[in-house]
Amino acid sequence: MFYTPPKIHSPLSLSDLTARIGETVSVCGMIHKIRRMAGFAFVVLRTEIGDLQCVYGEQAAFPLSVLAEEQAVRVTAVVKEDARSRLGFELLLCEVEILSRPTEPSPVVINNKEIAASAESLYDLRPVTLRNAKERAIFTIQAEICRASRDFFERMGFTEIHSPKLVSGSAEGGANVFRLDYFGKEAFLAQSPQFYKQMMVAVFGRVYEIAPVFRAEKHDTARHINEYTSIDAEIGFAESCSALMQTEAALLVHIFKAVCERCSAALALWNAKVPEIGEIPTVTFDEAKEMLRKKFGRADEDDDFSPEEEKRLSAIIRRETGSDLVFVTRYHTAKRPFYALDCPEDPHLTESFDLIFRGLEVTTGGMRICDYAAQIAKMEARGMDVAPFAPYLQAHKYGLPPHGGFGIGLERLTARLLGLDNVRRATLFPRDIHRLTP
Amino acid sequence: MFYTPPKIHSPLSLSDLTARIGETVSVCGMIHKIRRMAGFAFVVLRTEIGDLQCVYGEQAAFPLSVLAEEQAVRVTAVVKEDARSRLGFELLLCEVEILSRPTEPSPVVINNKEIAASAESLYDLRPVTLRNAKERAIFTIQAEICRASRDFFERMGFTEIHSPKLVSGSAEGGANVFRLDYFGKEAFLAQSPQFYKQMMVAVFGRVYEIAPVFRAEKHDTARHINEYTSIDAEIGFAESCSALMQTEAALLVHIFKAVCERCSAALALWNAKVPEIGEIPTVTFDEAKEMLRKKFGRADEDDDFSPEEEKRLSAIIRRETGSDLVFVTRYHTAKRPFYALDCPEDPHLTESFDLIFRGLEVTTGGMRICDYAAQIAKMEARGMDVAPFAPYLQAHKYGLPPHGGFGIGLERLTARLLGLDNVRRATLFPRDIHRLTP
Repeated sequence: MFYTPPKIHSPLSLSDLTARIGETVSVCGMIHKIRRMAGFAFVVLRTEIGDLQCVYGEQAAFPLSVLAEEQAVRVTAVVKEDARSRLGFELLLCEVEILSRPTEPSPVVINNKEIAASAESLYDLRPVTLRNAKERAIFTIQAEICRASRDFFERMGFTEIHSPKLVSGSAEGGANVFRLDYFGKEAFLAQSPQFYKQMMVAVFGRVYEIAPVFRAEKHDTARHINEYTSIDAEIGFAESCSALMQTEAALLVHIFKAVCERCSAALALWNAKVPEIGEIPTVTFDEAKEMLRKKFGRADEDDDFSPEEEKRLSAIIRRETGSDLVFVTRYHTAKRPFYALDCPEDPHLTESFDLIFRGLEVTTGGMRICDYAAQIAKMEARGMDVAPFAPYLQAHKYGLPPHGGFGIGLERLTARLLGLDNVRRATLFPRDIHRLTP
Repeated sequence: MFYTPPKIHSPLSLSDLTARIGETVSVCGMIHKIRRMAGFAFVVLRTEIGDLQCVYGEQAAFPLSVLAEEQAVRVTAVVKEDARSRLGFELLLCEVEILSRPTEPSPVVINNKEIAASAESLYDLRPVTLRNAKERAIFTIQAEICRASRDFFERMGFTEIHSPKLVSGSAEGGANVFRLDYFGKEAFLAQSPQFYKQMMVAVFGRVYEIAPVFRAEKHDTARHINEYTSIDAEIGFAESCSALMQTEAALLVHIFKAVCERCSAALALWNAKVPEIGEIPTVTFDEAKEMLRKKFGRADEDDDFSPEEEKRLSAIIRRETGSDLVFVTRYHTAKRPFYALDCPEDPHLTESFDLIFRGLEVTTGGMRICDYAAQIAKMEARGMDVAPFAPYLQAHKYGLPPHGGFGIGLERLTARLLGLDNVRRATLFPRDIHRLTP
C-alpha cells in the first residue's frame, strides 16, 4: 500500500554538462531547429537552460528522418568540447527517444532570429511565438527583474504581502475600474494594492507585493494594457519623498546589476544597453514644464505630461546629464489621489514623484497622509463621501506611521530596458481593449 | 535644478543592534505596549524586525505621559545587554520624537497574547488586529513559505511566469467562475493558471507562478475562500505522477526547513510543530475509500472525499505511519478535468493526485495530456465544444512535451502548518460569500 516515491531528478545544469566533457549524458528538450549540412546535421535542442547545440553524425544509431522540429525528445549524447560553441561544448547525438510530436508545423517560422509576422499574429500565436529565442529572452529577463526585486526587498527588511484583488470600492476613486457581480453585491477589480499596502505599514513597517492590477482604461496605445504586473512597495517611517526615490534608485541599481550578471545572453539578443545609474536627475513638475516650454515654445496646459512630452523631457535630460532616467517631483495636488501628502509649504503641490525611463513613465510614488484628521479633511474638501472608506481609514484612526511608497509597472520597465516599442511585447499574454485571448 | 538624493538608510537589523551594545542608537517603531511598573516602565516597540523591548527610566529626558500606544515614534536609546531578554538586549530610552498619533484607541485590545474578539471582529478590524504579535506571525511565516518556494523553484530550473487573470473562457470548465463585462465582451476571472502554465512548458520547460486565483464557490465553510493565492508549478518532461509528487515533497521539505530555521519565534507563538517529511505515504483513491469503508462501515459513494473523510483518512494514515501528509492518487476520470491524463491501463482512472495535510486537501496535481489528437478525442467524448479552446490547444497542435504539475493553496498550507481552524485566519484580507471588506 505504501511506497517510497523515486528520488527527485536534479535539474539540467550548464555547469554539470561542462563538467562531463567526454561522457555520455541524457538530455530532454524540444527540437528547436534542424540544419542539414553535407553528411551531418545540427540539431538545436530547446531546454529549460536555453538552447543546446547537438550534432547528428555517424555516431547516431537512428536515421535523421525520424526527427522533426517541435518534437519533444530525450537524447543520449556525448558531451564534446568545442571552442567555437557559445557554451564551450556541443552534444554528439547517439540515441533518441521521441516523447511527443506536433500535429502540424508552426504557422510562422519560430526558429530564425526574428519572427516575420505582424504584431497581431505574434500575440494570437503566443503559445508558439514565445518559443522563439528572442521572444523568450524578454521573459527570462522579466523573471530576473522579479527575482532581483524580491532579493532587494528582503535584504532591506520588507515583508511580502498578498492583498485582495476583489475589492468593494475603487482604490483610485476613478472610473477606470472593472466591475463584477460578487454574490449579489457589486465588486471591483483592484487598480492597485494602494490601500492594503498602506494598512500593512502599521503591521510590518515595510511591505512589498508583485501582483496583477487591473485598469479598465479605453486607451489603445503602445503604452497601455488593461492588466499588468505591479511591483509595489510601501515604506513605514519614510522621512521624505527623497528617501522614497533613493530607495527606488537603489532597487533599480540592484535589478540592473542582476540582469547584467545573470541574463547576458538574453540581453545580447536584444542588443540591450542596461543604464548605469549614478545619480538620477530630479526635476519638479513645474520646472519640467518650463523646460519643455523653453525648448519647444509650448507645453500642454494641464497638470500632467502628454506621452510626447515624456519623450521630449527624457531627451532633454539625456542631453544635459547623460541619464536615461529622471525623477519628476511635486505634481499638482489636483492631479494626485486623495491620499497624497501635500507639500507643507504649498498645498497645491504634493510630496510625490514619477520616474520616467527612456521616454516612458514607469513609476508613480509619493508620501501619503498618515494623520486621520488630515485625511478626512482632504477627502471632505474634495467632496468625497468618507463612509465607504471607513474600513481603510481604520489604519489612520488607530495609528499609522508616516509612510510612502511607489509602484513600478513590470512590463513597462522590461520594455524600456530592451527598447521594445510596445508594452504588449513585454507581456506574456497581453490584455487590451481588443484582446482577451489566448 | 539637479541634486543628488540622500543615501539610502540601512534597514534596522537585529545583528546590528546586538553589535552596538553600550552605544546610543535611533530606532523607529510603533508603541505596541506600555507597562507601567514601580518607578519605571516597559515600552514595547513594534518594528519591521519584530518587537523590541525598551525601558523607560531615569535616563529618559521626557515624561512618560507623552507616550501612548499606537503612536509612531523615533526613539534615541542606549543598547543594554540583558540576558533575560529574548534578544539578549533591551533599549534604555533617552529621547523620543512622536511622528504620528492615533485618534482613538483600538476598539479591541491588540497587545495581549491573544485578541479576545469574535472571528468576525478579527476580520472586520484587520488593519488593527493584524498588529497583534500572534496574528502578525501567521503572515511572517506565509511570506517565508513564498520565499522558500521561489528559492526551490529557482534552484530546480523553473522560470517564473505572470499569466493573465482576465480570461475569455473558464479554465476548469465549471460554473464557479466570476464573470465581468470586458469592453462589451464577456470575461472571466481565472480559476487557475492551468492553461497558461501548460502552454509555457513548451517555452521554458519548467515554470512556476505564485498568484491570486478566483473561485465563485458558494461554500460557506472553514476551508473555502473565494480568492486565494496559488503556488503553481508545471514541469515539462515529467516522467510520471510519482516524479511530480516527489518534486512537491522536495518543495515541502525545503519550505518546512526554511520556516523552522528562519521563523522560530513566529512558530513558537503558535506552538506549531512543523512536520518532518521522510517519505510521504501514498495511497490510491480506491484504496483510501476501502480503508474508510473498513474503518467506519461506510464511505460516501461519489468520486471524491467529503471534508469529514479527508480528516478520517488523515487520522488513519497518521496512526499507521506517523505521517501528517498523505498523497492520494488515481482519482476517477469522471471527477478530473478534461486535460488530465488517463492511466494507460485503465481509462477510468487518471494519473493524478491530491495531497492531504492534517485532514485538509492542500494540493491537486497530475500529468496532463500532451498529444493533440488525444486531447481533442477526450474533449469530444465529453461532449465539449472544442472551438473556444483553440488558442490553448495551439500548444498541443504545434508540439508540447509530456508534462504535469500541481497547485498548492498558500492559505490552506499556512493554516494547517499552524493548526488554524479556519483558512480565513491565514488570509490577510479574506474574501468569502459574505465578505468583501476591508
